[in-house]
Amino acid sequence: MKLGIVGAGMVGSTAAYAVALMGHVSEIVLVDQNAALARAQADDIAHAMPFAAATQVRSGGYADLAGASVIIIAAGVSQKPGETRLDLLGRNAAVFRAVLSETMTVAPQAILLVATNPVDVMTGITARLTGQPPARVIGSGTTLDSARFRDLLARALNVAPRSVHAYVLGEHGDSEVLAWSSARVGALTLDAAAAQTGRPLTLEIREKIDTGVRRAAYAIIEGKGATYHGIGAALARLVAAINGNERSVHSVSTMTTQIVGVHGVPLSLPRVLGRDGVEAELVPDLDTSEQAALADSARLLKQTLESVPLQPL
Amino acid sequence: MKLGIVGAGMVGSTAAYAVALMGHVSEIVLVDQNAALARAQADDIAHAMPFAAATQVRSGGYADLAGASVIIIAAGVSQKPGETRLDLLGRNAAVFRAVLSETMTVAPQAILLVATNPVDVMTGITARLTGQPPARVIGSGTTLDSARFRDLLARALNVAPRSVHAYVLGEHGDSEVLAWSSARVGALTLDAAAAQTGRPLTLEIREKIDTGVRRAAYAIIEGKGATYHGIGAALARLVAAINGNERSVHSVSTMTTQIVGVHGVPLSLPRVLGRDGVEAELVPDLDTSEQAALADSARLLKQTLESVPLQPL
Amino acid sequence: MKLGIVGAGMVGSTAAYAVALMGHVSEIVLVDQNAALARAQADDIAHAMPFAAATQVRSGGYADLAGASVIIIAAGVSQKPGETRLDLLGRNAAVFRAVLSETMTVAPQAILLVATNPVDVMTGITARLTGQPPARVIGSGTTLDSARFRDLLARALNVAPRSVHAYVLGEHGDSEVLAWSSARVGALTLDAAAAQTGRPLTLEIREKIDTGVRRAAYAIIEGKGATYHGIGAALARLVAAINGNERSVHSVSTMTTQIVGVHGVPLSLPRVLGRDGVEAELVPDLDTSEQAALADSARLLKQTLESVPLQPL
Amino acid sequence: MKLGIVGAGMVGSTAAYAVALMGHVSEIVLVDQNAALARAQADDIAHAMPFAAATQVRSGGYADLAGASVIIIAAGVSQKPGETRLDLLGRNAAVFRAVLSETMTVAPQAILLVATNPVDVMTGITARLTGQPPARVIGSGTTLDSARFRDLLARALNVAPRSVHAYVLGEHGDSEVLAWSSARVGALTLDAAAAQTGRPLTLEIREKIDTGVRRAAYAIIEGKGATYHGIGAALARLVAAINGNERSVHSVSTMTTQIVGVHGVPLSLPRVLGRDGVEAELVPDLDTSEQAALADSARLLKQTLESVPLQPL
Repeated sequence: MKLGIVGAGMVGSTAAYAVALMGHVSEIVLVDQNAALARAQADDIAHAMPFAAATQVRSGGYADLAGASVIIIAAGVSQKPGETRLDLLGRNAAVFRAVLSETMTVAPQAILLVATNPVDVMTGITARLTGQPPARVIGSGTTLDSARFRDLLARALNVAPRSVHAYVLGEHGDSEVLAWSSARVGALTLDAAAAQTGRPLTLEIREKIDTGVRRAAYAIIEGKGATYHGIGAALARLVAAINGNERSVHSVSTMTTQIVGVHGVPLSLPRVLGRDGVEAELVPDLDTSEQAALADSARLLKQTLESVPLQPL
Repeated sequence: MKLGIVGAGMVGSTAAYAVALMGHVSEIVLVDQNAALARAQADDIAHAMPFAAATQVRSGGYADLAGASVIIIAAGVSQKPGETRLDLLGRNAAVFRAVLSETMTVAPQAILLVATNPVDVMTGITARLTGQPPARVIGSGTTLDSARFRDLLARALNVAPRSVHAYVLGEHGDSEVLAWSSARVGALTLDAAAAQTGRPLTLEIREKIDTGVRRAAYAIIEGKGATYHGIGAALARLVAAINGNERSVHSVSTMTTQIVGVHGVPLSLPRVLGRDGVEAELVPDLDTSEQAALADSARLLKQTLESVPLQPL
Repeated sequence: MKLGIVGAGMVGSTAAYAVALMGHVSEIVLVDQNAALARAQADDIAHAMPFAAATQVRSGGYADLAGASVIIIAAGVSQKPGETRLDLLGRNAAVFRAVLSETMTVAPQAILLVATNPVDVMTGITARLTGQPPARVIGSGTTLDSARFRDLLARALNVAPRSVHAYVLGEHGDSEVLAWSSARVGALTLDAAAAQTGRPLTLEIREKIDTGVRRAAYAIIEGKGATYHGIGAALARLVAAINGNERSVHSVSTMTTQIVGVHGVPLSLPRVLGRDGVEAELVPDLDTSEQAALADSARLLKQTLESVPLQPL
Repeated sequence: MKLGIVGAGMVGSTAAYAVALMGHVSEIVLVDQNAALARAQADDIAHAMPFAAATQVRSGGYADLAGASVIIIAAGVSQKPGETRLDLLGRNAAVFRAVLSETMTVAPQAILLVATNPVDVMTGITARLTGQPPARVIGSGTTLDSARFRDLLARALNVAPRSVHAYVLGEHGDSEVLAWSSARVGALTLDAAAAQTGRPLTLEIREKIDTGVRRAAYAIIEGKGATYHGIGAALARLVAAINGNERSVHSVSTMTTQIVGVHGVPLSLPRVLGRDGVEAELVPDLDTSEQAALADSARLLKQTLESVPLQPL
């Protein structure tokens, strides 16, 4: 299995590192406009391999992406002082147009895994530019937010994160929706788990968790300037699910035909991932307030996507 | 971390193999009344290590169990023609008395992980003989039955087993209880998951799954004479949860103070496993028929345990 | 990646278990003349997966091998009382003719990995029957003997087996050749390592190691009736090297054009394994007695192979 | 197993990430003078765990290092403009005095693993300040340089890095010594391997490899500003070797009683690592020029170490 990564910044390179350490793919190719950066990242990661796995890691041009089964798109520009969010989106759309025109030429069969923020809109842009079916254009979405939700619930109840089953839906961003009502610990509702572990989930604790999930990236950015370890492992996990044809469930973003009354919007829902990308959707029951919040998130994303002027590839 | 295994038959040795391949402990010691068997198993597994991990695997006497953090008890005799189940239990109780007297002397601090069948009763016997707190005497119980339940649900719904959260409770045996009503796929109930994947779980399919779980061991024994790959990996997983202080949830057997009105009975419930063994209990909501079935299972186990004459260590 | 295994006895099923636990392939199909056995093995191993990896394990017919990148051939019959070794070989050649005719039809592109004993001769037979290039018909050969050699050297010098680099050449059997003169610990000769660790490798110790390697299988068979854990992991390692296109070095058996003056003989030498099977040969320097022993081993194997009457597929 | 890391910059945090992904320790505590940085790193890495392993990752104060079996010291200040290398060393010695005084109080039994550059001198300083036996104060040394040497040799000969056995000795820095004469591919000398793979190691290629190893860090720093993926995995590997009591061979730095005529010098040689730190030394045969270069490197390091004024803890 060959993995391509376009964009060798912190997110792209950490994803490469996590995939390489896990040893699930045989070859990783890093591509970046800054070829020296891609080469340095690939070399630094390749030097880790004798300690860990047999993954071959190298940098290359777009032509070297031929044969990749998955390509992570982590390229993009950052906000200039005074630039509006929409102007930024327009510039990133231009970057993606250049990147996708190259990747679709050399690796038309690859599943595209979008990591660039705002990830939902960029996923929508990718789907529109490439004309690929929604199942094959996947944004990391709220995969990471869901992990943070589980981590904080797990700490509150003193159980392992892997025994907590909970999802964050909608936008990877401020309007995201924590699906509290469907969350489970083992096979228990949160209330039952709280009762049995003797660790009540008071309103105060729930609010702390909500803020913790919603502000996690901000807190980490404040402390270390950027976030990349969590998202790197999240991307690695998604690559393993697709390449391994696992059919496991992940909260990823794709163009969604219809949800809570909104049509044609890129957002995250729990989805079954396999060899062909998104193979099914598993939307949990939501209570009234969760539904309303998801509708708000969906409308916001739809509006933003539609405001980005796009010229076809 | 050092793991001791008493009983080097198929179950004990396959558990050693699975633990060794996973590389989570640094040392495994196999002990068996048949020292030549223990040595042959240890050698065969040790020869696998240059291909896999750095685990040191060897055979030894009881004295070599000193310092083990966990000891798997997989020793036992098999049913003689014409022997009643109770007579067999009596003989296995005698085996355990000999084994436990030795292990408690050299490794009094070890968590005991019981694998010998009938595993619930043997777990109860172990707790009684050793006088250890219930949290430190753990039977593999329905860990494996829960995995089989997940595997069959996963196949029926065409999703990954790891995205199915479902438990089997009570006896590891004919009276076990599949907790259908609390089972989840991602964060969905079975009915919702069936609807969304377009794969209805008809009564017929549910009955097939019920039979499949309940008769899995019989079917495998018919085909290959014994079952050991599944239980070996189940034991390896429990060792990892304890040694790694994971606090993850597993359906294991321990002496249970009270459940569905039955007091002092060894049976399986979802439990939080960590460094100190069972650290919490997470009993899911059960519907009326599941509750009744669990009560039956509990009464049966309590009665069997009490019928085994025990002399203290 | 899909792995096929023909022959669901202890060796084939343990290889499936080791591969599945390691999680390097996405799908394993077990095929056996005894379909009930194959199904029971596949089920028992599949039940281990929720504890370990996302590998899909199932049984099937030959048609299900389509698309496999590697197929392990572990099928075969055992010696009848009074049967000569040559008669046995003739019967196993017949088994292989049936097996290979089916596998070559459905999976002509698969690398064949032969595990049935006597493995060198069966590798030669497989190459002849299929007409495949030698690089694509690989016997497990002395992979396992080399691991045993390393394990015993490592114990004698009190270092990790993975820091010992040593190979067994020639036949997987009585005439095999331990390549003492080229063995290294880290970057040291055995004599230098023995001096620096203060653990001299006396003639007596060397003889014990030689016997230990040569008689390992016999000793294990005496203790437990058969050997399968070591060979299972060895096969799993070879599958990983091929599927991962590693180009790592393993002492495997293939039809060898010429070695120590013998032409056209199936035997083990250290070889570079990658996506296309054997991609290079790395024969270490041998001293005079090692060369002579290898020539003897090669002549014996050539003679045996030529004595087996073969009808083309 | 608990791992402590002091210094949550790129090297310390990447080591934490690599260890956490590999899942070999149950708990990691990050300590930094900048508590907000340590918290942000720990959170970012903790968010990766639901995708990978059960490692618990958190930040803390020195008191939280209690019970750690290994502590990585990756703290340090960077060179100010105009500052001499010796002045920098003096400032880092002061940092280490503060760090070590705290860690030795709460975790006197921990093996110390030094990662701060210049790593050999800092290892010597650590040994002097703590008065610990050399075996328990280990610098990452040329572990990474050896990996780079293997990686480049592997590429030149088109084999897997794990099949190349080669060490870099002496200083982790400009005076380091590539031990060409003892390098092996499988069990072959480089010349024999080059001949058999048909890829001659010409003087030109050897010089490129020499430069490649020696300048690897500079090249990576030029491309991405710093090097951390390789060293992070190297540290993770050393932690696994110690915690797993592997007795595997690594080219690490410790205070060396005597080598090539120099006494009491911190430098790298291949060493056996186990539960008690360095358990044996395995110095390969060196040719005359390698010996001379190693003597130069040793004299340089001894001189530098002795020039750093140290006040005891």
